[in-house]
Amino acid sequence: MKTYSGYLIDLDGTMYRGEERIEEASTFVQQLKDREIPYMFVTNNSSKRPSQVVEKLRSHDIPATEEQVYTSSMATAAYIKRQKPDATVYAIGEEGLQSALSKVGLTFGEEQCDYVVIGMDREITYEKLAKAALLVRKGATFLSTNGDIAIPTERGMLPGNGSLTSVITVTTGVSPTFIGKPESTIMELALDELGMRKEETLMVGDNYETDIKAGMNAGLDTLLVHTGVTSREDLIVKEIQPTFTVKNLSEWVIE
Amino acid sequence: MKTYSGYLIDLDGTMYRGEERIEEASTFVQQLKDREIPYMFVTNNSSKRPSQVVEKLRSHDIPATEEQVYTSSMATAAYIKRQKPDATVYAIGEEGLQSALSKVGLTFGEEQCDYVVIGMDREITYEKLAKAALLVRKGATFLSTNGDIAIPTERGMLPGNGSLTSVITVTTGVSPTFIGKPESTIMELALDELGMRKEETLMVGDNYETDIKAGMNAGLDTLLVHTGVTSREDLIVKEIQPTFTVKNLSEWVIE
Repeated sequence: MKTYSGYLIDLDGTMYRGEERIEEASTFVQQLKDREIPYMFVTNNSSKRPSQVVEKLRSHDIPATEEQVYTSSMATAAYIKRQKPDATVYAIGEEGLQSALSKVGLTFGEEQCDYVVIGMDREITYEKLAKAALLVRKGATFLSTNGDIAIPTERGMLPGNGSLTSVITVTTGVSPTFIGKPESTIMELALDELGMRKEETLMVGDNYETDIKAGMNAGLDTLLVHTGVTSREDLIVKEIQPTFTVKNLSEWVIE
Repeated sequence: MKTYSGYLIDLDGTMYRGEERIEEASTFVQQLKDREIPYMFVTNNSSKRPSQVVEKLRSHDIPATEEQVYTSSMATAAYIKRQKPDATVYAIGEEGLQSALSKVGLTFGEEQCDYVVIGMDREITYEKLAKAALLVRKGATFLSTNGDIAIPTERGMLPGNGSLTSVITVTTGVSPTFIGKPESTIMELALDELGMRKEETLMVGDNYETDIKAGMNAGLDTLLVHTGVTSREDLIVKEIQPTFTVKNLSEWVIE
């Protein structure tokens, strides 16, 4: 097994399953911490602030600091900031998105905007969608934090941000630039935050379509763990396989 | 010119343009009324009750009764009633849809439903979309009053029901059966209401993609009037032309 100097790690299905504990996750991350190997959690969840993610990880005895959390909202904010540092943004989304955008110093606007951003919003209204559609039609650059079509909940699979995003896409005919996994954008920005190069970093996740593809798209080696979405049966038919596959993270030896 | 015993007539762009009057529309409909030629207004608007449509038509001096209005909501209610008279329905939509469904005696439900129906809803919430998605995943038949991706307003083009519908389509992977124009469904149900056969009825409208295609799909002759959406330039490139085309309805001679 190759030695990696850095780790990018998915959350749901990899570190926990909803409210359920994944026993091997804590030991795995604890080993990284003990050996002082830099790691960062990369999540498509656009709703939560890093402090809320840290709280959840710690409740499962997984060592984490706010600086080790990278959400699709933070990646979207960083993406805009690099393109146009003084940009005005109209954003549909929850606390995690709004706080990420203001943290990097972007200005919010509703009339004339450089960017329209949509993230998961359980307080979605027709007026929010109407404003976003009008601004995209006027030429604002259209970004979406992530394209997840559904989110698992105790009630079942509920509409994800990818499905909310489709309202704007369908009505304007303009497709957004997605920032989250499986896009390489979030991975490259997370690598920068971690201060590592892609050649020395491993992407760890349970979902072939998001985590593993994101790693592949960004040129990282990948580790698929079968504790979440993608089963062995799902994986066997994929043309391009992850670099490594384990049943759970106790099988992975950190060198 | 062929003589028609019945007329199906579009509203916006044909009888008026938003709040704006179309001068020739009133005389045209008045002639139909005077000659006792049966006519019916067929609209994709799912939000309004027939009485509200009548009020608007009369404000433009266009003779109309509630029995002469056929909305996509009424067509959806009739469609369900024919398929399953005792059906339970979960409906996202405004007053026009809710009243059309209850008028034909359908039962509303949120837990176990035979049908999920979506129409234009400017009070859309995440919870409504979540309920609809869960029910469609559980096997409810998915209907949408109409697929219009945008609606013209004084603010610009705003999201139409086709774009709201896409949330459920994208998150569940299930495409709805659309009822409104350009589907033949609404036309066939309207013809039944009017009591006419398709061979003797003319479909009149301004929008090639909805009105004219609906007429064609249902096997009716069609009259495109250039007072709304479809311009001469738009029309010239269409492979299949309407039966007749006029600049405005004063050019049409009712025999």
